[in-house]
Amino acid sequence: MTTHHFQPDHYFTTIGAHPPVLTIAPGDTVITTTVDAFGRDARNEQVAGRPNPQTGPFFIEGAEHGDTLVVRIDRLTPNRATGFTNAVLAPNVVDPEFARELPALPRFDWRVDMESRTVTPEIPIPGLEALHLPLEPMLGCFGVAARGGQAISTMTSAQHGGNMDYRGFTEGTTVYLPVFEPGALFHLGDGHAAQGDGEIVGTGIEISMEVQFTVGLRKGWTIQWPRGEHEDAIFVAGNARPLDQALQHATTEMLHWLQADYGLDVRAASAVLGQCVEYDVGNVYDPAYTMVCKVPKRILAMLAMPAKQ
Amino acid sequence: MTTHHFQPDHYFTTIGAHPPVLTIAPGDTVITTTVDAFGRDARNEQVAGRPNPQTGPFFIEGAEHGDTLVVRIDRLTPNRATGFTNAVLAPNVVDPEFARELPALPRFDWRVDMESRTVTPEIPIPGLEALHLPLEPMLGCFGVAARGGQAISTMTSAQHGGNMDYRGFTEGTTVYLPVFEPGALFHLGDGHAAQGDGEIVGTGIEISMEVQFTVGLRKGWTIQWPRGEHEDAIFVAGNARPLDQALQHATTEMLHWLQADYGLDVRAASAVLGQCVEYDVGNVYDPAYTMVCKVPKRILAMLAMPAKQ
Amino acid sequence: MTTHHFQPDHYFTTIGAHPPVLTIAPGDTVITTTVDAFGRDARNEQVAGRPNPQTGPFFIEGAEHGDTLVVRIDRLTPNRATGFTNAVLAPNVVDPEFARELPALPRFDWRVDMESRTVTPEIPIPGLEALHLPLEPMLGCFGVAARGGQAISTMTSAQHGGNMDYRGFTEGTTVYLPVFEPGALFHLGDGHAAQGDGEIVGTGIEISMEVQFTVGLRKGWTIQWPRGEHEDAIFVAGNARPLDQALQHATTEMLHWLQADYGLDVRAASAVLGQCVEYDVGNVYDPAYTMVCKVPKRILAMLAMPAKQ
Amino acid sequence: MTTHHFQPDHYFTTIGAHPPVLTIAPGDTVITTTVDAFGRDARNEQVAGRPNPQTGPFFIEGAEHGDTLVVRIDRLTPNRATGFTNAVLAPNVVDPEFARELPALPRFDWRVDMESRTVTPEIPIPGLEALHLPLEPMLGCFGVAARGGQAISTMTSAQHGGNMDYRGFTEGTTVYLPVFEPGALFHLGDGHAAQGDGEIVGTGIEISMEVQFTVGLRKGWTIQWPRGEHEDAIFVAGNARPLDQALQHATTEMLHWLQADYGLDVRAASAVLGQCVEYDVGNVYDPAYTMVCKVPKRILAMLAMPAKQ
Repeated sequence: MTTHHFQPDHYFTTIGAHPPVLTIAPGDTVITTTVDAFGRDARNEQVAGRPNPQTGPFFIEGAEHGDTLVVRIDRLTPNRATGFTNAVLAPNVVDPEFARELPALPRFDWRVDMESRTVTPEIPIPGLEALHLPLEPMLGCFGVAARGGQAISTMTSAQHGGNMDYRGFTEGTTVYLPVFEPGALFHLGDGHAAQGDGEIVGTGIEISMEVQFTVGLRKGWTIQWPRGEHEDAIFVAGNARPLDQALQHATTEMLHWLQADYGLDVRAASAVLGQCVEYDVGNVYDPAYTMVCKVPKRILAMLAMPAKQ
Repeated sequence: MTTHHFQPDHYFTTIGAHPPVLTIAPGDTVITTTVDAFGRDARNEQVAGRPNPQTGPFFIEGAEHGDTLVVRIDRLTPNRATGFTNAVLAPNVVDPEFARELPALPRFDWRVDMESRTVTPEIPIPGLEALHLPLEPMLGCFGVAARGGQAISTMTSAQHGGNMDYRGFTEGTTVYLPVFEPGALFHLGDGHAAQGDGEIVGTGIEISMEVQFTVGLRKGWTIQWPRGEHEDAIFVAGNARPLDQALQHATTEMLHWLQADYGLDVRAASAVLGQCVEYDVGNVYDPAYTMVCKVPKRILAMLAMPAKQ
Repeated sequence: MTTHHFQPDHYFTTIGAHPPVLTIAPGDTVITTTVDAFGRDARNEQVAGRPNPQTGPFFIEGAEHGDTLVVRIDRLTPNRATGFTNAVLAPNVVDPEFARELPALPRFDWRVDMESRTVTPEIPIPGLEALHLPLEPMLGCFGVAARGGQAISTMTSAQHGGNMDYRGFTEGTTVYLPVFEPGALFHLGDGHAAQGDGEIVGTGIEISMEVQFTVGLRKGWTIQWPRGEHEDAIFVAGNARPLDQALQHATTEMLHWLQADYGLDVRAASAVLGQCVEYDVGNVYDPAYTMVCKVPKRILAMLAMPAKQ
Repeated sequence: MTTHHFQPDHYFTTIGAHPPVLTIAPGDTVITTTVDAFGRDARNEQVAGRPNPQTGPFFIEGAEHGDTLVVRIDRLTPNRATGFTNAVLAPNVVDPEFARELPALPRFDWRVDMESRTVTPEIPIPGLEALHLPLEPMLGCFGVAARGGQAISTMTSAQHGGNMDYRGFTEGTTVYLPVFEPGALFHLGDGHAAQGDGEIVGTGIEISMEVQFTVGLRKGWTIQWPRGEHEDAIFVAGNARPLDQALQHATTEMLHWLQADYGLDVRAASAVLGQCVEYDVGNVYDPAYTMVCKVPKRILAMLAMPAKQ
């Protein structure tokens, strides 16, 4: 149950079997920092390349192919006062005919006020003078070394995690990741001070962070896609294009989860999913999109068999 | 401001320029009934064909091409004690390889208790003995006569509305529909006592209903896709496949809405959407899927210019 | 075996159960004319509205739901000297980011020379001074009254046919269409003097035509999607978005065809399709795209059982 | 202009910056062998893992990021008498509802006769007793080390090439690949004795091969996607899901090609593509699908400016 303070001095823009920066044990906590999506740190200095440079990887003792890595996101603290966003909707999220009318406008900054926990545009934008968003820090990109010896760009996502840009990956959420390589090799980065669903301007409010997380390990519990859990729900992230396929991945994995851990047969699981499922949209900007399949805990609480822990 | 009581004696399974069953004026309220998705009424008698037979159409005086029909869903009251669902996930929402493993199981009924406002399976399903869902009535399929003289199957959806199966089309929601034909010709049907996102077993809890709605008309306010509004948000429904394209339709229409009625330029609207948008999934079962693009009213309240009403 | 000469005086922009313009018998031949996609006739006069106005419908005696209409395209003769095309790739066929760079340029005309059977731009286009395409006339849009009482816009396509814009619908091709309504109600229009795969500028070389076709009827032979046959192959057109789904429709229907009429079991049909299938792309411009699944006749000739005729 | 004979002793199942097995110069020819998709060699012995193990990588002297590697496929000679295929259509290429009816049947072998240059099933399949396919050897999977330090599974494809399973990658074809890493690092494998479009049973006729290829280098000619050229056409392969996006990638790249090397402006290039383009379907089985955009050389021959070589 050690707490490690780790200060990164290099970063990766692929997620793969890179040399680990630190070996930790299940139960350990790590306090570290992440740079923003463009590689700038707490002092806004460029210390890494694009896109979404990752802190890590962390080698988790005992983790082997077929296990599941557990990561609780304990704390996400922006460590500078300014984040930035793109200024215009991404052309792939509007009708193609309309994409031609989108102007090219420069990125701009947002002030992140840790005291009031609000985020506001740094520049005057007509109509938005009173806009202040709640600070809702999240991790855009993290994951474990990918399946089959791949090194996958931090621009995209797959079964190992990656650039999912899902708002639900926030403080208090526990993430489950399938282990493919010895030590799992956990990477993290791409913090956002806030973000809408889909990351549809191509960025959240991109910022560097101090991050605290605690790892666990579930030996022999094999999963196929990133899963998660927070106060209100359990969820699965499916990563693919089109969204239809991401939804298929997430729904299939959730069905397996309900069958394996909640003791439901396919009819019971279908009844729960059919009448109670909720979908959230992660990233719809990257090569792979993210769809999240969610079951509320208030529903799970009515099931005969609680989840095996 | 008349209240009409209308008892249907025939139903349509396409939405188009059918002969109207009643002429009403903007401001009028209608109390009527809808049959379930398979054409069964309050007494569970088969009175119409499949799929999703529609009550109506209602001719709204003064509605012309280019106007927008406003429909407030005042009340949705299931008028029998039993609804039904499919028993197994639809094969198109799981991984194709896994679809082969889905069994064929018969539909089953759910008891709808108006007093406790809960819904429970009528048959014993191991693990679900304690499951009781809140009654959350919604309209699965409704719309106006479609663009260009089309008559579109109630199995699918398009710009005119149709079978969107979105949980947000519930009591208290106001719906906006583009008018293509004189009188708009409003149809409605396919009530659900409850439903998960996506209607992923291919049904909600299908039931007949008593429905009360009130119509309005916004002359010269031209929209391209169904829009809506409830206590917490304004939203747009885009209907297409894949979900990616439905999302494009909905996002483009929401951008236009923010620009036209909230006085935002493309940068301001992009900032709001990029950092605050929420997406909901309607139907992912029909030929056209439905994606809903939503902006919370707490965000709109911070904008300089309130919506023009 | 009558030959009918039919001169249309009105046109439809939906394909549905419209009043027939002529009743014909299986075995009959019709010689008629079609206007171009924008409704202009042989004298370039505007006689109908957009899009893709249809000549017909023709009522085929004896055709009933569950039968298959057979249409042999005997002859397609452009009946004026000029066709037109859009000038720039459609934004939906290029990368969204690049769509922003596509200019808006006016349509232009192409000279159609029936003697040399070539097509050339009417305006000087740098680099294309020597370009002359072979005249390859085709029918962009045709079909029968759609399933379930629908009237479907000629802008799109479905099981009934519609705007498929497939180059294989040309002289000498025999088309099979599922009959949904009494008399089948065959519509046709939208001739092209030539066209690339996909109709990726949003038009072929749009032109009015004289068309000769001969109808047949296969009682009790039920198909789900448009099928066709020419000298070299049999084929099926699947219509949907994305192309992936169009391909699923076409492949499934071809599998059924090989099983039902060529006596193959699923393994034999899979071997033929897996190692010999060819796909062609129809329209990738409309709301529904078209994918064609084709099996060469040289392969069919090796099968034990010839097709039942 | 050396000819290298290279006998591999290890293989990779990702395409990335692996240690090169041989350094060669532009103009050099390599004669080597590839194992089949499951890792079996000419003697049908298992010498590598799945999927699609690659021979190489070959380091091409002088190749740098921004250059283009040229690979002429001189010869593809199956080096054993038997290939194998899956027995049933992949569930993702049929309608989801129908996927449930696909049986699970074992793979089977095909006899590859080099003398008659035909391929026939090794097992008796009712109806296919007379089926003999022409031997049409092709390379299913090849490419260069991927962009940004990625190592991409040989199960899929991207800008670097990969598992495209396109029938046009055959003897006599010249392939162009974007160089991302020093030396380009060319990998190859996954030979097929024959294959239908789409590889829709999930395999071609999988076989080990002797392969002869000759490399070239175009310094400073930067491309984004694999391109190719054979006697009849130039072409571009786009790799993504859905096919719609693969088509966007391929079409955009072909537009750039016509503009940069054939001196066409966007209108002229649109005219050529709009009225003359042909699309071929590569793999529709893998995580990324492949769509090929092709322009016939008979069309290119009419353009004012020949390609710069």
